[in-house]
Amino acid sequence: MSGRVDIIGLGPGAEDLRCPRAAGALAQATDLVGYVPYLERVAEDSGQRIHGSDNREEIQRARLALDLAIQGRRVAVVSSGDGGVFGMAAAVFEAMEQGDPRWRALEVAVHPGVSAVLAAAARLGAPFGNDFCVLSLSDNLKPWGVILNRLEAAACAGFAMAFYNPISKARPWQLGEALARLRRHLPGSVPVIFARAVSRPEEHVEITTLADARPEQADMRTLVMVGNAETRLIPRPGGEPWVYTPRRVGMNA
Amino acid sequence: MSGRVDIIGLGPGAEDLRCPRAAGALAQATDLVGYVPYLERVAEDSGQRIHGSDNREEIQRARLALDLAIQGRRVAVVSSGDGGVFGMAAAVFEAMEQGDPRWRALEVAVHPGVSAVLAAAARLGAPFGNDFCVLSLSDNLKPWGVILNRLEAAACAGFAMAFYNPISKARPWQLGEALARLRRHLPGSVPVIFARAVSRPEEHVEITTLADARPEQADMRTLVMVGNAETRLIPRPGGEPWVYTPRRVGMNA
Repeated sequence: MSGRVDIIGLGPGAEDLRCPRAAGALAQATDLVGYVPYLERVAEDSGQRIHGSDNREEIQRARLALDLAIQGRRVAVVSSGDGGVFGMAAAVFEAMEQGDPRWRALEVAVHPGVSAVLAAAARLGAPFGNDFCVLSLSDNLKPWGVILNRLEAAACAGFAMAFYNPISKARPWQLGEALARLRRHLPGSVPVIFARAVSRPEEHVEITTLADARPEQADMRTLVMVGNAETRLIPRPGGEPWVYTPRRVGMNA
Repeated sequence: MSGRVDIIGLGPGAEDLRCPRAAGALAQATDLVGYVPYLERVAEDSGQRIHGSDNREEIQRARLALDLAIQGRRVAVVSSGDGGVFGMAAAVFEAMEQGDPRWRALEVAVHPGVSAVLAAAARLGAPFGNDFCVLSLSDNLKPWGVILNRLEAAACAGFAMAFYNPISKARPWQLGEALARLRRHLPGSVPVIFARAVSRPEEHVEITTLADARPEQADMRTLVMVGNAETRLIPRPGGEPWVYTPRRVGMNA
């Protein structure tokens, strides 16, 4: 049995933001498994078998990958960004734990990538220059009350925040409610950034404030970033401002 | 004036975990600015001027970089991992905001890298498969009370956690107190991982539990990861277990 599973983070989009290790594992795969739009980004080598699937089919996709590996295939499971941050890594281990005991003996490796949160932060400056947290706003897999509770805890404790899965056709109201909840705990002046498709040709970034942020500024491909009360803007001549969160908290300089 | 500043994330250590974009910006620099051990990792090209400095001199280092750029130099400011995650990016913007107004007109770019937290998570499985937060345990720049408050908020709300700067000669007791505080709010069975120098030859990883974790298991170069109450281990025949946090929270499967 020589099959294996490589869980690969493709990075945010630009070719030169993909790690060589991830690119190498991708090139050596016999089979590519993933969400169709991600596979379209990478599938060039016609010798590879392509197993595309729809969004929200992560567990079936993970089982397919493990099953192909048991058959001796060398399987690349691709995610955008980093596979460990709301990508396929957790789904593969979930499937492994619940499935065929032989899956646990497979050679499996997770190859990290530049996550959307790191790429978007770099694009804007250093919004996560201090403590921060990363949440999914999707209530498909957790109760909405848990999400609101996490938002409030993070806001009150002074974490900056990044939101994956902020909005979709099936989840149209959650982002608006999340922003409203944050307004109870944070000043309206806190910077909010909508960063869509960073590093790709269709990249679009909007910088606003918590008071002015509107859910319509996000779509499925947007990463939303919310500063803490100390996050600052630096005006730039002839350009959008830099956004950064100081490293120092509540002490005199 | 053709000077510029590139804030570069070198990645966790292994050559093939460095993004081509970061490597390219590094190669084009005339001047390299950074903490001495990081510069030693990259300084090969004898034509580049090397400006090494000690730890905890981030602001002076940032000012030097901006000043060199004003003089027309092409300056690479290097950080391990990602410059935006407890690296040099926030220090550069802090210096920019407080310093010479001409600095704001400089061409500056932040080139993301695979942060220690992403590299360590990938090495272990998917410990950050759900919402997580990233904190520095250093109280050099923020009051210890703020750190304890953030730890409690994160633990109670169910975030998994990664700790940068867990311990040093000058801060010997903080990690022990942080772990003790977490034990008030989380089950002793929660996985704790000490991940030192991931992807480098001296890599060393220990998996334990919150009940058993000891501060002596960390040093300056260790990233500490703490799961949430749902983080799980999958035993592996002939190897250390996989660690992952399920995507699903508190709902019946």
